[in-house]
Amino acid sequence: MKRTLYSSDHEAFRESVAAFVQREVVPNLERWEEDAIIDRGVWLAAGKQGLLGLAAPEEYGGAGGADYRFRNVILEEFAKVHATALASSFSLQDDIAIPYIAEIGNEEQKQRFLPPMIAGERIGAIAMTEPGTGSDLQGIKTSAKQVAGGWVVNGAKTFITNGINSDLVITVAKTDPAGGPNAFTLFVVEREMEGFGRGRKLKKVGLHAQDTAELVYEDVFVPDENVLGEIGGGFGQLKNMLPLERLSIAAHAVAVAEAVLAETITYTKDRRAFGQRIADFQNTQFELAEMQTLVNVARVYVDQAILSFNAGEFTDVDAAQAKWWTSDLQNDVIDRCLQLHGGYGFMLEYPVGRAYQDARIQRIFGGANEIMKMIIGRKIVGRP
Amino acid sequence: MKRTLYSSDHEAFRESVAAFVQREVVPNLERWEEDAIIDRGVWLAAGKQGLLGLAAPEEYGGAGGADYRFRNVILEEFAKVHATALASSFSLQDDIAIPYIAEIGNEEQKQRFLPPMIAGERIGAIAMTEPGTGSDLQGIKTSAKQVAGGWVVNGAKTFITNGINSDLVITVAKTDPAGGPNAFTLFVVEREMEGFGRGRKLKKVGLHAQDTAELVYEDVFVPDENVLGEIGGGFGQLKNMLPLERLSIAAHAVAVAEAVLAETITYTKDRRAFGQRIADFQNTQFELAEMQTLVNVARVYVDQAILSFNAGEFTDVDAAQAKWWTSDLQNDVIDRCLQLHGGYGFMLEYPVGRAYQDARIQRIFGGANEIMKMIIGRKIVGRP
Amino acid sequence: MKRTLYSSDHEAFRESVAAFVQREVVPNLERWEEDAIIDRGVWLAAGKQGLLGLAAPEEYGGAGGADYRFRNVILEEFAKVHATALASSFSLQDDIAIPYIAEIGNEEQKQRFLPPMIAGERIGAIAMTEPGTGSDLQGIKTSAKQVAGGWVVNGAKTFITNGINSDLVITVAKTDPAGGPNAFTLFVVEREMEGFGRGRKLKKVGLHAQDTAELVYEDVFVPDENVLGEIGGGFGQLKNMLPLERLSIAAHAVAVAEAVLAETITYTKDRRAFGQRIADFQNTQFELAEMQTLVNVARVYVDQAILSFNAGEFTDVDAAQAKWWTSDLQNDVIDRCLQLHGGYGFMLEYPVGRAYQDARIQRIFGGANEIMKMIIGRKIVGRP
Amino acid sequence: MKRTLYSSDHEAFRESVAAFVQREVVPNLERWEEDAIIDRGVWLAAGKQGLLGLAAPEEYGGAGGADYRFRNVILEEFAKVHATALASSFSLQDDIAIPYIAEIGNEEQKQRFLPPMIAGERIGAIAMTEPGTGSDLQGIKTSAKQVAGGWVVNGAKTFITNGINSDLVITVAKTDPAGGPNAFTLFVVEREMEGFGRGRKLKKVGLHAQDTAELVYEDVFVPDENVLGEIGGGFGQLKNMLPLERLSIAAHAVAVAEAVLAETITYTKDRRAFGQRIADFQNTQFELAEMQTLVNVARVYVDQAILSFNAGEFTDVDAAQAKWWTSDLQNDVIDRCLQLHGGYGFMLEYPVGRAYQDARIQRIFGGANEIMKMIIGRKIVGRP
Repeated sequence: MKRTLYSSDHEAFRESVAAFVQREVVPNLERWEEDAIIDRGVWLAAGKQGLLGLAAPEEYGGAGGADYRFRNVILEEFAKVHATALASSFSLQDDIAIPYIAEIGNEEQKQRFLPPMIAGERIGAIAMTEPGTGSDLQGIKTSAKQVAGGWVVNGAKTFITNGINSDLVITVAKTDPAGGPNAFTLFVVEREMEGFGRGRKLKKVGLHAQDTAELVYEDVFVPDENVLGEIGGGFGQLKNMLPLERLSIAAHAVAVAEAVLAETITYTKDRRAFGQRIADFQNTQFELAEMQTLVNVARVYVDQAILSFNAGEFTDVDAAQAKWWTSDLQNDVIDRCLQLHGGYGFMLEYPVGRAYQDARIQRIFGGANEIMKMIIGRKIVGRP
Repeated sequence: MKRTLYSSDHEAFRESVAAFVQREVVPNLERWEEDAIIDRGVWLAAGKQGLLGLAAPEEYGGAGGADYRFRNVILEEFAKVHATALASSFSLQDDIAIPYIAEIGNEEQKQRFLPPMIAGERIGAIAMTEPGTGSDLQGIKTSAKQVAGGWVVNGAKTFITNGINSDLVITVAKTDPAGGPNAFTLFVVEREMEGFGRGRKLKKVGLHAQDTAELVYEDVFVPDENVLGEIGGGFGQLKNMLPLERLSIAAHAVAVAEAVLAETITYTKDRRAFGQRIADFQNTQFELAEMQTLVNVARVYVDQAILSFNAGEFTDVDAAQAKWWTSDLQNDVIDRCLQLHGGYGFMLEYPVGRAYQDARIQRIFGGANEIMKMIIGRKIVGRP
Repeated sequence: MKRTLYSSDHEAFRESVAAFVQREVVPNLERWEEDAIIDRGVWLAAGKQGLLGLAAPEEYGGAGGADYRFRNVILEEFAKVHATALASSFSLQDDIAIPYIAEIGNEEQKQRFLPPMIAGERIGAIAMTEPGTGSDLQGIKTSAKQVAGGWVVNGAKTFITNGINSDLVITVAKTDPAGGPNAFTLFVVEREMEGFGRGRKLKKVGLHAQDTAELVYEDVFVPDENVLGEIGGGFGQLKNMLPLERLSIAAHAVAVAEAVLAETITYTKDRRAFGQRIADFQNTQFELAEMQTLVNVARVYVDQAILSFNAGEFTDVDAAQAKWWTSDLQNDVIDRCLQLHGGYGFMLEYPVGRAYQDARIQRIFGGANEIMKMIIGRKIVGRP
Repeated sequence: MKRTLYSSDHEAFRESVAAFVQREVVPNLERWEEDAIIDRGVWLAAGKQGLLGLAAPEEYGGAGGADYRFRNVILEEFAKVHATALASSFSLQDDIAIPYIAEIGNEEQKQRFLPPMIAGERIGAIAMTEPGTGSDLQGIKTSAKQVAGGWVVNGAKTFITNGINSDLVITVAKTDPAGGPNAFTLFVVEREMEGFGRGRKLKKVGLHAQDTAELVYEDVFVPDENVLGEIGGGFGQLKNMLPLERLSIAAHAVAVAEAVLAETITYTKDRRAFGQRIADFQNTQFELAEMQTLVNVARVYVDQAILSFNAGEFTDVDAAQAKWWTSDLQNDVIDRCLQLHGGYGFMLEYPVGRAYQDARIQRIFGGANEIMKMIIGRKIVGRP
């Protein structure tokens, strides 16, 4: 069905993003994979071109538009060249770190943090998960103890996207040892703070260019002015920001599925076996037909989700639905595309292999899909 | 996500449909199942209330709106009371028979056929399938031989929806014994024509109130004025009308899935096992969460499909995608809902059992889902 | 793979069963469906031919063999002619009712009950489930109050296989109002007992020839000599007998899947579409290939389960695994076979349609498949 | 169900294999992954301990047993420590290369090649696939041209397991330029032959320790005494050996699925979230219950397949069924196990992540699962 999401503004923006991608991303993709980290050059270039802070107010250097369609253009253009790790890195910045500060931060914090983040000079991260604590935030053990002029943070975090590169880490810490839903507070921990360090860069199934890492906090003094939002208000704030994070995962999922399917269609038309194109087998046609349907359905759905988000109507249940369903679909589509590649699917020379490795985390991060189903299910049956 | 499909006009129409359903449908549902046919009373009542011929021009008594949203309101209200067979009967009239005549018929035919159809006095059907010929229309053997003033039709048809009740049967017959794509022509065969009779009313897995039947043509003389469209133009005309038929199947599928899921949610909240509500088991919550997501995604998708159809942009590939995917989804959702009912699911006292029986045909009629995948797949890989 | 389950004894027995089936079953199948009950003639004929009480001791008229392979031969031969309801009726007798009495009954009871059951003169049933109580037996409300010389039973049961035909109903009743695991006792309630009656014969999704019904107990006096096993020992006894019941469901599932697949293969070779056999489409071949693999795997597995049962090693966890997996597989295979039949699949003239209707209950009765997963899961994770 | 496959001989052998694994495999696993190749030390150690050439005749140094159960013990013990790449390397030697020579080779060839292969001094490989030729062997372009005393081979191969390490490469080459089924012949190409070289070691989705590589043949002179079997008899010979290769894939699949599931069960019992063990969630229990059932079914099935193979009754259709079904199952189980690990599942510190990467190729190599379905399907429908 004809897509109705975009206006000419978005398409013009797409052109500039596409040019950026060809210039700054494509030539570096392989190196980033080898290095297992994305270098800072692309961040600065993106900042210069205005690809960061799309939703941040103009007064801090942002594009000032709360229109997620522009972010979606970026996700689509990154997906087209299979820049998955970069997509997740930028998403962390634009869909998580910057919105946190823009939404929750006070005026001084916005002035201090947003401009360098939007310029790509300061890279953000969010540190929730801890060793032994997955999607269950109540289990967070990292503590912040109040001292004169600030707080002393101790603990460890893991699975941190942008873990090595990050300069500003929004850190969830327990400020009330008694626990409970009001026991957690957000802190902006900065790279230079004493006692704040990196643990291991983690070896992963995929997303190799993403510097997922552990973080270590040893008596890190965080001044009062780096407290983000209310003391004890951490959970409520996290909860408010989750729909956007999960929308970004869903939008990425569909963009990637589209890109991998397009590449696979081309592949099946090019390769031959048993005297005909792979595309000429009925099994191939049925597989492609099913996948294109799935991807088209998901496209219509996510486009509508984006409009719903723009309208301020996208709820946490909506987000949970979009997140689990699209990430499952992405994995399913890529798995089937890989199979259509035969032996080449298992090799990394075609994009599908890397896409396969990279996709698996989508069903886990941003809240495991089981958590999504808990959120939706409880709402349906009327339980807290 | 908030639904944006309808305006207040549609909601006002919904109220009148809902009243009709309570008055004319609900009290008769069980009887229709027992009788294995829907009586003509509901047709006349629907005609009187303006529920037939929604898209037909006002000059012939229709509502004159080419806005499929009104039809969708009817499908939704019928689904809410699980009037599946009635939905398929009316769909045959409004989404198939009337549009054929309105689109292809000449002025005289429109004047002659449309008003009684819109009044519910004359019931339509379409006769394509033959014993031994499923979705492959090239295999049609029913022949029409030209004679003075008309044609003589011989043959047999099967799986005809509204088979017993129908008064006007749009019949596909072979007018050129040599075969080929231009060998088939449409005829309006009328109940009273000599030699035209009913075969068996077919016993089915479900849709028991639907009078699916065989038709028999023995030297039926059909006058020239009952030829619908061009001689030899049958296939092209059929093809043009398929997107609407398939949209109606998809719209029905989603409406039914929504209704059955809603009833199931209520059931799981009401019933108890092992000391708690069935709704309190995590498995139940996950099942409901997955199903509600699926249904919501399908809802967004079909709403968009309806708008696309209204805009004249809904292609045969779009229709093929919508048809197979939603009918599969409908079956999947109902199967899982039935399971959540336990033993009661297998009994016909809850709606889910009958919904299960009725749903299965959705993946077959209107073109088997395999045919849908052939249509989509060929388009993708560039084959005729 | 070559099957190794049977010896020549079993194959000789198969011949006699096959002859019985042709003579006594096939001519009546359609009538039983129409009547929604199986008449007693086939019971008597089966008794005469020695097809009932296969595992019962010879001294009571049984075949005296604790070799389940003979039962499996019957299941296979019934499945070949799609006599599903009869299979479930006989299974109730031979896999449930007779074993209960043979295992738990005292000598007098065996002498009194077994011979007429084995002769097909007295039909057995088991009455556990109650309205509002599915697989959760703790919720049973039917009570038995001790009086002089016996017990007075009050309550209602539902979903009772052989509900109308049954003469001897093993009834679970609560003998200790305080509840708890030792509160339940088994009683043999006989047709002639005053106050014992039939409720509605239930309308179902399928298994139409099976007289599933409600039972009503109004101050039914059951003499002490009809107490089966220990007072308060009901749950333990039920639990001991479940593996056999579930094995019979699994064995039936595979036999039916095999029979429907065989019929479907024939169908796809006979029917033509688009100029070739349906069997010539790659999609058909892949579907058949997948299904034949599934069925073969299930065959190997259930054959092994039968040997394990014969060896006295078949545990409740084994039974739970076999029951859910094979019944899911049976439903999946039949659903796909139906689809390969196209429109004919929805009609009852081919066996696949009725098989579709009949199969659905397999995932629910004998303990819903969710209960099976609870049993298996708890064992794995070490919970009660 | 109690397993009946093994005798005490096999269990005694298992102990020695387990000791070998602890001593020679476990300490090196991580290094092999890093190096992307397995070093020759383990081959020699395995040769010394008698773990290679299990089925080869004793006169050449083999164990002389055509009992695949011993091989299965090795596959199980390797799977327990997640030595997937090693398993595939040894499988290539014992299930493919050695059997080819033992079955097809002449006496001189057996004496020359088998002893060093069984000693682990000479590593075997088979070179069928070419760039652009997947499972369709008719497309092989590597040619062998007859010259005095031998043949000159030219061409390139890809996806070669043991590609870098292999010393003896059974190479399929086209000896009749006219093509057709009798155009292909097998040659034993040796490492030292002039013009025979290695291409790229291929980067893959998983199986990183496996040195999958390209091979290059530039005017390689292969003497007549290295022709394996009849000139033009290559295809028939390949076909005869496929069942064993596919059995080994199936046996590996089940062993890996068992090992990963066992590890996952332990994980879910150890980790906690939301105040309880992950194992205490109903969703976890259902997942584990389903997976354990699947794995048990597959275990029964593959054990029977092994016995069938031992009995010389395991057909190509049997092998095709076992290969596709178990490799799909393995992937499904591992995917679900990974999900139960949450974020840790995506990290390589738990075995499930690597198992996930490694498993994907199982559905492709040894004949893509689509090819398996073609083989099975054609047999069913009676086509060549």
